[in-house]
Amino acid sequence: MTQNADFEDWVKTGQDLLERFLQQHLPAPTLAPQRLHEAMRYAVLDGGKRVRPLLTLAAGELTTAPLPTLITVGASIELIHAYSLVHDDLPAMDNDVLRRGKPTCHKQFNEALALLAGDTLQSLAFQWLSDPRLALDPARQLHLVQQLALASGSRGMGGGQAMDLENTNQNPTLPELEAMHLKKTGALIRAAVLMGAHCGQPLDENAQQHLAHYANCIGLAFQVVDDVLDAEADTSVLGKTAGKDAAANKPTYASTMGLSQARAFAQELHDDALHALAQAGSQTQRLAQLAHFIVHRSH
Amino acid sequence: MTQNADFEDWVKTGQDLLERFLQQHLPAPTLAPQRLHEAMRYAVLDGGKRVRPLLTLAAGELTTAPLPTLITVGASIELIHAYSLVHDDLPAMDNDVLRRGKPTCHKQFNEALALLAGDTLQSLAFQWLSDPRLALDPARQLHLVQQLALASGSRGMGGGQAMDLENTNQNPTLPELEAMHLKKTGALIRAAVLMGAHCGQPLDENAQQHLAHYANCIGLAFQVVDDVLDAEADTSVLGKTAGKDAAANKPTYASTMGLSQARAFAQELHDDALHALAQAGSQTQRLAQLAHFIVHRSH
Repeated sequence: MTQNADFEDWVKTGQDLLERFLQQHLPAPTLAPQRLHEAMRYAVLDGGKRVRPLLTLAAGELTTAPLPTLITVGASIELIHAYSLVHDDLPAMDNDVLRRGKPTCHKQFNEALALLAGDTLQSLAFQWLSDPRLALDPARQLHLVQQLALASGSRGMGGGQAMDLENTNQNPTLPELEAMHLKKTGALIRAAVLMGAHCGQPLDENAQQHLAHYANCIGLAFQVVDDVLDAEADTSVLGKTAGKDAAANKPTYASTMGLSQARAFAQELHDDALHALAQAGSQTQRLAQLAHFIVHRSH
Repeated sequence: MTQNADFEDWVKTGQDLLERFLQQHLPAPTLAPQRLHEAMRYAVLDGGKRVRPLLTLAAGELTTAPLPTLITVGASIELIHAYSLVHDDLPAMDNDVLRRGKPTCHKQFNEALALLAGDTLQSLAFQWLSDPRLALDPARQLHLVQQLALASGSRGMGGGQAMDLENTNQNPTLPELEAMHLKKTGALIRAAVLMGAHCGQPLDENAQQHLAHYANCIGLAFQVVDDVLDAEADTSVLGKTAGKDAAANKPTYASTMGLSQARAFAQELHDDALHALAQAGSQTQRLAQLAHFIVHRSH
């Protein structure tokens, strides 16, 4: 088996385990209030690459964390990601109609339900993460809650979205763009890596810092590649509306640096990530493969 | 000092402690992203009766819980309440322009910022509640996170709001109306009481059940009184748009039972709450006074 086929199998297995967990643990659509539960499931199930929980699984291998714990933690992070997409697509934000090849949540249901589905997905993430059955030491588990809350909040993902709003129709400098993306996309990706590692044997301070650097680099690379794909891909391949950043006058790496420079920057970030990773531990193969996957994906 | 003056002093002291905690712990308006932090502070500070955190403080007296812990826990619950009001006032939901005598958050800022302020207030609630400085046993603290997540989510407050949406222009039966309110308003009020008690000496199963019954009764009474006030009060006294339930064709206790019946029902719930409370423990004076306060308030 080639290394690539092995990685693809690992990704598929991880995605299947996550999908099964999400299917089973999201509130059943037969449970009241039914429409809300349908909207929550619609927003989460059967879509997305599950990059964040895959990073959690991979980082957990580094510290030999138990798989069931990693699945729950990764699924909680995915709920936060899914809720952020639902709210981001609302008319008051990006006003988008297509997501993962399907109508966005507020198009399929309505705005009020999409708003509430996002809100309750966030609550559910913290419910799963604080579940007493997680089989982690309570103090360590509490730290996971703290990490996810910080990554989601006004100094993390939510703050990055607010900075993104302020940037529209402005011409931010590259450092300003980077500061925004380190929060908007980076904070949750970083949390996915560090929380996964946190579920196993404690890493020393030095290894943690290298892992955090890896996470920052791939978080930023993820966004740079997103911008490049948005600028050049077809809507049909992307599964969401392409070219919408330019249409919305949103500054991106593609518009700020130019396409080829942005592609080169993503590759630099990838190399920087791998360099840091080599100093974080020995079981880093999956994290390295995921960095490659993030930078070289086509959607 | 009369009993009433003593209670008013206790309320004032609790409100002041909470306000100071919120002032100090909400992200500073000088911190980036500034507009988001301004919107978060606007939505929380300088407004509201702080009924939920007062219930937390009162329930904590029952189990001799430490005051600083109760303030943090109560403040976290208040963040969830504040976020729900911000989202509830959005055009996609109740489309309201006035709250606590001020323009609603999306009127003062804009819809996108109000949406994000609500989202990040929810994250902040879980950040405060998982703070390692809370000085609680980690397993107990984790249980608080679990309680708040359940109370906020699709089987609690958020689910109640979805049921409320479904009820608009319908004629729900009284049991349906009650089921909705037990979630929409009741879940967080119940959590405020039980989480406060949870911060101190463990209660036995029997006392916990009586306390939960007290909490259910006052949670429902709170909503019944809200409906009555909405139907009969002036906008200037209420601090929010009066008569909006009728205008929106929302079924309420006032419209379903009639005003005088609804007032009598609130009193019955009050009496039922006090009956349960008498069996929950000996330090229940503040909880009893709060039940009275909830039922006999004018706004």
